[in-house]
Amino acid sequence: MSLSKNEIKLLKSLQQKKFRNSEQTFVVEGIKMVNELLKSEKQEITAIYHTAEYETNHPKARLISKGELERISGLKSPNAVLATVKIPDEKQLNTPNDSFVILLDNVNDPGNLGTIIRTADWFGINTVICSEDTVDCYNPKVVQSSMGAIFRQEISYLNLMDAVKKLIAAGYTILGADMDGEDLYTYNFPDKCALIMGSESHGLSDELKSHLTRITIPKFGDTESLNVAQAAGIIMSAYRMKKQ
Amino acid sequence: MSLSKNEIKLLKSLQQKKFRNSEQTFVVEGIKMVNELLKSEKQEITAIYHTAEYETNHPKARLISKGELERISGLKSPNAVLATVKIPDEKQLNTPNDSFVILLDNVNDPGNLGTIIRTADWFGINTVICSEDTVDCYNPKVVQSSMGAIFRQEISYLNLMDAVKKLIAAGYTILGADMDGEDLYTYNFPDKCALIMGSESHGLSDELKSHLTRITIPKFGDTESLNVAQAAGIIMSAYRMKKQ
Repeated sequence: MSLSKNEIKLLKSLQQKKFRNSEQTFVVEGIKMVNELLKSEKQEITAIYHTAEYETNHPKARLISKGELERISGLKSPNAVLATVKIPDEKQLNTPNDSFVILLDNVNDPGNLGTIIRTADWFGINTVICSEDTVDCYNPKVVQSSMGAIFRQEISYLNLMDAVKKLIAAGYTILGADMDGEDLYTYNFPDKCALIMGSESHGLSDELKSHLTRITIPKFGDTESLNVAQAAGIIMSAYRMKKQ
Repeated sequence: MSLSKNEIKLLKSLQQKKFRNSEQTFVVEGIKMVNELLKSEKQEITAIYHTAEYETNHPKARLISKGELERISGLKSPNAVLATVKIPDEKQLNTPNDSFVILLDNVNDPGNLGTIIRTADWFGINTVICSEDTVDCYNPKVVQSSMGAIFRQEISYLNLMDAVKKLIAAGYTILGADMDGEDLYTYNFPDKCALIMGSESHGLSDELKSHLTRITIPKFGDTESLNVAQAAGIIMSAYRMKKQ
């Protein structure tokens, strides 16, 4: 049975945060990403719309035409399958078990957020806490650039100052990347660290800065700054190099 | 004097590689990027088109209206100024002076290429050699995501096998990131290294693989791979951590 106009409109609307919130649903597109989704046990899939090119016997699967896929897709080149997934319930920040957590202060670029989530997953860091003004992690570009890591990570949106206070109370050292802090390459990471990364154009807010141990990625050239995802990845790697 | 139709058409055409090649000219947009450009002494600026919002007494400056800027810009939100710059003459690969060089095999994503150039510049690595099928470094998105590092780096497009052979003859060890190579965290970098990074979907070509010393970024989680720019940055940082 072909998709109704209303179904198409609803699916397409999930490209926007407002409708993802009201429907509590997000979209996952493309063969590779949907395969990652199917491997994950944490996610509740509500539907899988696929063309004849994609084979599945999932109970929620629904065969559609290529033309229909084009109409519901957010991609320039739709790729055989689109799934809808329930947004998990918002979690409160319990004291995380991780010895290293990531805090993101106003990271706006979806590609950067997705890359940070993907890299955190690579390094076995499972808690990512975002400020309320950080881009929505269910934005299709974030989901895409996370390469499926988003299906495994604990991601929450919180008031960062509250989160920082709770983490300090729980014994965490709050680390922030800055220009004249301690040298990352000789720094001894404490047993429990929370790394705050801020968006490049705004920097970290002043209130947050007062709680920071500042660390610096040594600079050998002339470029003014590193991309926020790149800097986060370099610090996560240095941590793992020293504290495997 | 307002811009002619032909001038607008020509400027707009520089968004495409074909016309950048025939004109041997690329475009730099926005206040921050043009300021970076003006700091660089290596680049030959052919024109600076600016609205009243951007002040300059550059000899090639030309005041235009906001409407004109919108017509020549490749950005969604044009930002006060657009400069045109001569593409530097293609360099032959002489033996580089750097003890660490980057080789890129078929990196397609402009954001990834720009980020790699930016990070290389941060770590004082000045030679980036691209395979002929790597995305054009004068693509506006590459220029933008390099955050001006492209004005300082030596970037060449070469047959990668030829480049690898010359580098081996010059005493370089060719390093490639792979899944089961030597542990990056315990690896002793030789004095002269050339790091090859490949695009994520294709991997490195078989012929190149036979020349490689494979190194591995240790993995602690479930994600299948790292973004190519992220992996390159992590390896550059590990190199600097060990061989400052």
